[in-house]
Amino acid sequence: MTEPAGTSGNPNAHVPGMPVVAVIGDGQLARMMQTEAIALGQSIRLLAGTPDSSAAQVAADVVLGDYTDLDDLREAVRGVDVMTFDHEHVPTGHLRQLISEGVNVQPGPEALVNAQDKLVMRRRLREIGAPVPPFAAIESVEDADAFFDAVDGAVCLKARRGGYDGHGVWFPATRKELAELTTKLLDAGTPLMAEQKVALVRELSAMVARRPSGQVVPWPVVESVQTNGICTEAVAPAPELSEELAERARQLAVSIAEELGVTGALAVELFEFRDGNGQPTIAVNELAMRPHNTGHWTQDGCVTSQFEQHLRAVLDYPLGSVETTSPVTVMANVLGGDADPELPMARRMADVWERFPAAKIHLYGKTWRAGRKIGHVNLAGDDLPRVRREANLAADYLVNARWADGYTV
Amino acid sequence: MTEPAGTSGNPNAHVPGMPVVAVIGDGQLARMMQTEAIALGQSIRLLAGTPDSSAAQVAADVVLGDYTDLDDLREAVRGVDVMTFDHEHVPTGHLRQLISEGVNVQPGPEALVNAQDKLVMRRRLREIGAPVPPFAAIESVEDADAFFDAVDGAVCLKARRGGYDGHGVWFPATRKELAELTTKLLDAGTPLMAEQKVALVRELSAMVARRPSGQVVPWPVVESVQTNGICTEAVAPAPELSEELAERARQLAVSIAEELGVTGALAVELFEFRDGNGQPTIAVNELAMRPHNTGHWTQDGCVTSQFEQHLRAVLDYPLGSVETTSPVTVMANVLGGDADPELPMARRMADVWERFPAAKIHLYGKTWRAGRKIGHVNLAGDDLPRVRREANLAADYLVNARWADGYTV
Repeated sequence: MTEPAGTSGNPNAHVPGMPVVAVIGDGQLARMMQTEAIALGQSIRLLAGTPDSSAAQVAADVVLGDYTDLDDLREAVRGVDVMTFDHEHVPTGHLRQLISEGVNVQPGPEALVNAQDKLVMRRRLREIGAPVPPFAAIESVEDADAFFDAVDGAVCLKARRGGYDGHGVWFPATRKELAELTTKLLDAGTPLMAEQKVALVRELSAMVARRPSGQVVPWPVVESVQTNGICTEAVAPAPELSEELAERARQLAVSIAEELGVTGALAVELFEFRDGNGQPTIAVNELAMRPHNTGHWTQDGCVTSQFEQHLRAVLDYPLGSVETTSPVTVMANVLGGDADPELPMARRMADVWERFPAAKIHLYGKTWRAGRKIGHVNLAGDDLPRVRREANLAADYLVNARWADGYTV
Repeated sequence: MTEPAGTSGNPNAHVPGMPVVAVIGDGQLARMMQTEAIALGQSIRLLAGTPDSSAAQVAADVVLGDYTDLDDLREAVRGVDVMTFDHEHVPTGHLRQLISEGVNVQPGPEALVNAQDKLVMRRRLREIGAPVPPFAAIESVEDADAFFDAVDGAVCLKARRGGYDGHGVWFPATRKELAELTTKLLDAGTPLMAEQKVALVRELSAMVARRPSGQVVPWPVVESVQTNGICTEAVAPAPELSEELAERARQLAVSIAEELGVTGALAVELFEFRDGNGQPTIAVNELAMRPHNTGHWTQDGCVTSQFEQHLRAVLDYPLGSVETTSPVTVMANVLGGDADPELPMARRMADVWERFPAAKIHLYGKTWRAGRKIGHVNLAGDDLPRVRREANLAADYLVNARWADGYTV
C-alpha cells in the first residue's frame, strides 16, 4: 500500500494541494513559524521532543522523536515538501543521508556546518574575505599560549560546538587562567577555538533570507543589546548607524548567504568596533541559519516577518517586502527572573496592556525557569528613547511583576 | 477523582497558569483566533465538526462534536476560562444552561440573540434609539401586503434566522412576487421579516471590541464592498467619509455594544444613504458578535488585530491600541471561482508575491468550492487607488490564475 503524501503525522492538518514544511525542533522559533504557516494556508509538521513543548502546543501534526535519531527524522519528513529547522543541531551525516533519499533539506548540511562549528565557520568566512577577528584552533595549552601572545592577552575562548546565549564562551583574564580552562575543557572532550576580543562599540545583527533559486533579501540592520551573553533587546533600525556601514553590513550578510549557500533566514551577528584609524567598522561574531532573536521585531515592525520569510524562502517562494511599518521598533526579551513572581503571568500581561496599549506581547508557552527565554515584547513608534524605555519596562514587568520606574496605578 | 482544569481535550496544548479559551466553531475565524492565541502564550480549545476543518488543522486541542449538542458543548468547555464563538448559531438555551453550570460565556445569550434573530435585533435597536430602516414582522401575506404599501414597494424580505453572505435575503420586484415568496417561505417554516430598501450610497462597517467589565474600543470605520451579498472588499479607513459621520458610526457601534451587553468583537454593518435633505446618513444593516470579514484588514493594518482583540476582550484583558500602521489598508476576499484553475494555489501565491511583494496572503486551509471564502489578501500603503487595484488584482489572481489587467511576466 502506498502512503499518500504528507501523512506521516496527522493528515487532517494539511489541506490537499498545499505544501507541508517539516520543522525539526520544538522551541519558540518553530512555534512562531507555525503562526505564519497558518496564515499561508498551511500547518507545519513538527518533530518535537515532548508533546507539551513550545511548538507542539500549537501544532496539529506532531511527530514525537529525537532529532539525533535518523529514523525519527525519516518519520518526521515523510511526504513533506521541505525540511527545515528551529536549531542547527541535527547531525550533518543524517542530513546527507536524507538528501540521498530524496528529502529537500533547507538549509542544507554544507551551509549548516558553518553554523554548527565556530572554527569551520571562521575558516570559511576568512576564505570568502568576510571580516572576522583573528582566531585560532586551540588543541593544546601550547596553542592557547601562542594565541595569548599573538593577541596581547585579549582572548575569547569558545567551544566550537553547541554554545548559545553565552554558554560555551569564556573570557580568561590571565595566561594561567586560559591554560587551566583549556586543559579542563580539552580533557572533558570539548573542541575549542579562540578569538581576539574586539574593543566593542556595540553589537549589530544583519539578517537576510535567501531562496534555493537565488533571491536574497536583507532586512534593515538592527542593534542587538546583550546582557550576560544573551540578547535582551533589539532596536530596528540600528540607531545612528551610518548608511555606509549599514549597507556594508547588509552586503556582507548577502554575500555570506550566497557564498555559504544558506537558504531560509540567516542572522549575521556583528561586532561594531573602531579600526586602527578610529573609524567604526564591523566583523562577524556568529551565524545563525534560522529565524533569530534579533529578528523578532519584524513580527510587528515589518511588512514580512522573519518567520513568514523563512517559510517562503525554504519553499522557494518569492520573498516578501521588508519595508518597515514604523520609524522604530524595539524588541525586549522576557527572561525568567531569579524567582517567578506570585502574580500570575496573565495578570502581568493585563497590567502591561493597561499601561501600554500598543505593546505586543509574544509568549512561548513556557513555564518559568531562571534565565529562560519565555517571551518578548515588541513596541513600534516614532520616538526612539520612549519606545525603548516602554518596551523594556513592559518586558521587565512581565518578569518581575513590578514597574522598574516605580510607576503605580 | 477530580479532573485538573483545562484538560478536556489535549492538556499538553496549554501551559500551566495561562488561560484557555474555548472557541465553538471550526471555520476561518476560529483559525485566525488560534494564530493570535499562540502569540499570547495560549492555544485555543476548539469544538470542531470535523478534524480537517479550517481551524482544527491548526489546533492541538480539538474536541470533535456538534455545537447544537449540549453534551458536546459541555465537553468542549470543561475547565476553560471562557467560552466564545466563531459563529452565532449555538442555541441560546444551551448557553443559559452552561451559564447556570458556571461556564463563562462571552458574548452571553442575551446579547447573542440579537445577532441570531434579525427581527429581535431590529426591535431592540429601535428601542435603544439606533437608526434602522422601517421594518415589520411578516407572519402572513397580509403583513407582507401592508408592508409593501407602507414602503411604496421598496421591500427587502429576510429570513429572521440563519442567513449569511446573501443567503436568506430577497428583493421581490412586485407585490405578487412578494406574496408568492412569503407564502412559500412561511409554508416551509421560515420565520420572516421585511425591511425597507434604502437608497444606498455604500456600505460601511463600524467595529468595536468590548470587555465584560466595560471598556469599549472602536476601530476606524471601513467601507465594505458587497458583491451578490458577499463582502468582497474592505477599505480602511472608509474613503471620503466625513469625520462627523465616522464619529457617529463609531459612537453608534459603541452604544450598541453597551446597550446590548456585547462582549468580544462586534461588527455593526451599516448602510450609508441620503436622508430627506440629501445629507449622508447611516442606519444599521446587520450585527455580528465575533470577528468579522470587514475586520480582516486589522491583521496587517492595525496595531491590534480583531482576532487578538476578541480574545483579550472575552478574557477581560485591557484592550489594545487600534492605531493604524498605514494610511490605507485594503482587504480583498478570495472566493472560489466558477472552476478551480489547474495552476496549484501554491504557484498562484508565488505569482502574486512575484508581482506584489507587499501583498499579505491569508488562506484558510479550505479546498475550492464555487463562491466559498477560501482566503483574503491584505495590502497596506499610502496611495488608495493603487492599493485597491493591487489588492483586488492579487485576490483575483488567486481565484482565477490569470491577471485581470492582462499583465504578463
